[in-house]
Amino acid sequence: MNSLQLTALPDFPLVGPGDDLAALTLAALEQAGIRLRPGDVLVYASKVVSKAEGRARKLSEVKPSAVALEIAKTCDKDPRLVELILAEANEVVRIRQGLLVVEHRLGFICANAGIDHSNTAEDEDLVLLLPEDPDGSARRLHQELSAASTAEIAVILNDSHGRAWRMGTVGVAIGVAGLLSVSDRRGAPDLFGHLLQITELGTADELAAAASLLQGGADEGAPVVHVRGATYVPGEGHLQDMLRPRELDMFR
Amino acid sequence: MNSLQLTALPDFPLVGPGDDLAALTLAALEQAGIRLRPGDVLVYASKVVSKAEGRARKLSEVKPSAVALEIAKTCDKDPRLVELILAEANEVVRIRQGLLVVEHRLGFICANAGIDHSNTAEDEDLVLLLPEDPDGSARRLHQELSAASTAEIAVILNDSHGRAWRMGTVGVAIGVAGLLSVSDRRGAPDLFGHLLQITELGTADELAAAASLLQGGADEGAPVVHVRGATYVPGEGHLQDMLRPRELDMFR
Repeated sequence: MNSLQLTALPDFPLVGPGDDLAALTLAALEQAGIRLRPGDVLVYASKVVSKAEGRARKLSEVKPSAVALEIAKTCDKDPRLVELILAEANEVVRIRQGLLVVEHRLGFICANAGIDHSNTAEDEDLVLLLPEDPDGSARRLHQELSAASTAEIAVILNDSHGRAWRMGTVGVAIGVAGLLSVSDRRGAPDLFGHLLQITELGTADELAAAASLLQGGADEGAPVVHVRGATYVPGEGHLQDMLRPRELDMFR
Repeated sequence: MNSLQLTALPDFPLVGPGDDLAALTLAALEQAGIRLRPGDVLVYASKVVSKAEGRARKLSEVKPSAVALEIAKTCDKDPRLVELILAEANEVVRIRQGLLVVEHRLGFICANAGIDHSNTAEDEDLVLLLPEDPDGSARRLHQELSAASTAEIAVILNDSHGRAWRMGTVGVAIGVAGLLSVSDRRGAPDLFGHLLQITELGTADELAAAASLLQGGADEGAPVVHVRGATYVPGEGHLQDMLRPRELDMFR
């Protein structure tokens, strides 16, 4: 039977700077009675990776530039937060009351450069940047998990993004390892031997969205989701493959 | 344990105009040994609903207008297909070589008004329009399935859409019944008592994406996916709730 099983690893501990996420994952898998099998995927909320990598910043230590002060006025945000957003951005895409949409330095378009205020700690002063290099983080986790298991698996870092024309955030992949992030189906025959006209499947993004259903928008103690039964193409994927090249961008 | 289980109903028969999808679903559920429980979700590939509702059209019977001929030249598509796309669209959003992006009459922005050429039948002449009223289709399925079971369930129609800035298509919801399509989390306290800043979760879209992982971009004999374990808000949802109001659209 064609089925997919997602499990939020239970009782995952609160994570702090320097924590060994791979070791915590292996312990949590064991506790959950899950033995990694070939084709399994582990989806990490980017937030938990950021915490482990020490990406928290204190707003009180940020000195906003003149540009940040100006933009902060327009979008009605904390100028220190805007300063951090600009430092994480290639360019500002849209500014509106309550909203600052940028191209993140990693290439994707998102609100606030993915900087998160809630759920960091009991400290109002702390915000959390996205991981420095999500593909690299995924690759390290993939390596460390693979070293402890003979199973070929995949790792995805997900984050919650808004969309241009749809309401509500959905999980998307911002880092991958062990799978091609986009599955090329062009030319594959369909049920009736027609060539499939659909171009490519956003497999990593769909896995990120599926896992996000168990993470509830915050990590809420369920930052790592184990997925079994997914069809994907093993290989060396990259965030870059999921991003529409600038020359094909019709909507910026 | 917080977990999610998705099952593509096996051996779902090929569907034709007038077929009773609810009855076919109940038979397939029984064959799969799945008894509906409260909170279960059934996700239908919109294609199978279109087929049941007789939404196939013959290109050979379409007479393209002057406008369709003109647009077809620019985007290099069959003028008869373009005629059908325009008839299903409120407005053309972008035209490029090989690409025609429109606002569908249902309000969402997508390529080719969601009209699908592949996998309809062994007839090159046939294309498939989206269901006339996907919320209505979902509601009918919901009613008929609910009549046969005491369990409170939800129904989603999904379709594969491209995104403005990301590569690959992902499943999105184009019709819902029995759940709020967007879950408002604003103001909910997070782990540390902060107020969650994330605005709203695109729950129906995430469920649509998750189910799409088992449908593989085409229906491939797996047009109906049963989901167990999802957290959602029961209620009367609407496609409209998932669409960004025109006045908040910054990217058209």
